[in-house]
Amino acid sequence: MEKVASAVLFPCKYASTGCSLSLHHTEKPEHEDICEYRPYSCPCPGASCKWQGSLEAVMPHLTHAHKSITTLQGEDIVFLATDINLPGAVDWVMMQFCFSHHFMLVLEKQEKYEGHQQFFAIVLLIGTRKQAENFAYRLELNGNRRRLTWEATPRSIHDGVAAAIMNSDCLVFDTAIAHLFADNGNLGINVTISTCCP
Amino acid sequence: MEKVASAVLFPCKYASTGCSLSLHHTEKPEHEDICEYRPYSCPCPGASCKWQGSLEAVMPHLTHAHKSITTLQGEDIVFLATDINLPGAVDWVMMQFCFSHHFMLVLEKQEKYEGHQQFFAIVLLIGTRKQAENFAYRLELNGNRRRLTWEATPRSIHDGVAAAIMNSDCLVFDTAIAHLFADNGNLGINVTISTCCP
Repeated sequence: MEKVASAVLFPCKYASTGCSLSLHHTEKPEHEDICEYRPYSCPCPGASCKWQGSLEAVMPHLTHAHKSITTLQGEDIVFLATDINLPGAVDWVMMQFCFSHHFMLVLEKQEKYEGHQQFFAIVLLIGTRKQAENFAYRLELNGNRRRLTWEATPRSIHDGVAAAIMNSDCLVFDTAIAHLFADNGNLGINVTISTCCP
Repeated sequence: MEKVASAVLFPCKYASTGCSLSLHHTEKPEHEDICEYRPYSCPCPGASCKWQGSLEAVMPHLTHAHKSITTLQGEDIVFLATDINLPGAVDWVMMQFCFSHHFMLVLEKQEKYEGHQQFFAIVLLIGTRKQAENFAYRLELNGNRRRLTWEATPRSIHDGVAAAIMNSDCLVFDTAIAHLFADNGNLGINVTISTCCP
């Protein structure tokens, strides 16, 4: 029986939405996790919104179901997080529109390690992983003769933020640093998006 | 008695080395902590060396008692920390000579929060607080299409590194980020010193 199973190829479970791959049963779960035909989930941080749909439907969903998210236009904007001293886990989200694409800016405050609150800031592209490779982003905290900068490739919303935060693959800073740069409890993060040499 | 004491001024305990201030007994400890005439301690991280002396005697002390510390010349150098995966609290130290001054580069690995190892990198000037204000430094981790940068004013060795680390007033990163940028367990930190507009 095992010999038979190891010779059989199964279609990807996203065949109905367009994936034409057939895989060995041991490779199937791994592929389906990263399959480009997997539906997109709502990119808002926290798991409260259960919406899923195609990439093209993400922006209409955000515009209609998450009206409170502001959008700024331009390659170089300020992402202002207000009341960063609020207790507990908090998310700040906004959208940036440039180069004909929407980028989602996320700042999360959480206790990844007990008793040690940290901030995690990251930029996501409302687009595929492949599209994301064409861009770079810079997050910058500035003030009091100090500057902290993180530059990287945006994540696709298909990957989401959880893994990046788990791996610290984003701008990470603790509450002491936040206070160095904050003004009256508000933290301005300079965000710059650029296109990347191919 | 208390009324008398509150009217009396006491000389700073570093009067013999040059301080001419007389202070109220409530102000004396605070001043003596930051008095420019306080002897300099050995700037090597960790408290094992008990040497104290004048600012002019610090470099001769380091050259003779801490021969293993290498010095690189130039404004723009690479501080290579080897074997960053070594367990426990570890310090990496080197000297950079430029603008006719010696700067001490320190990378410390420690568990400021239990179960969460972090790296702290900072630049100290072998000089006074006032001299330090004339400079700026940049620490940069680079690789894998990512860059993390910290820019600030060097600390005087008179202040030391402990308070800066306590306040996260330095480049702070965790082991996950260290692995993103390390190559075979070795981490190269680009260090650039510049003079500051007055």
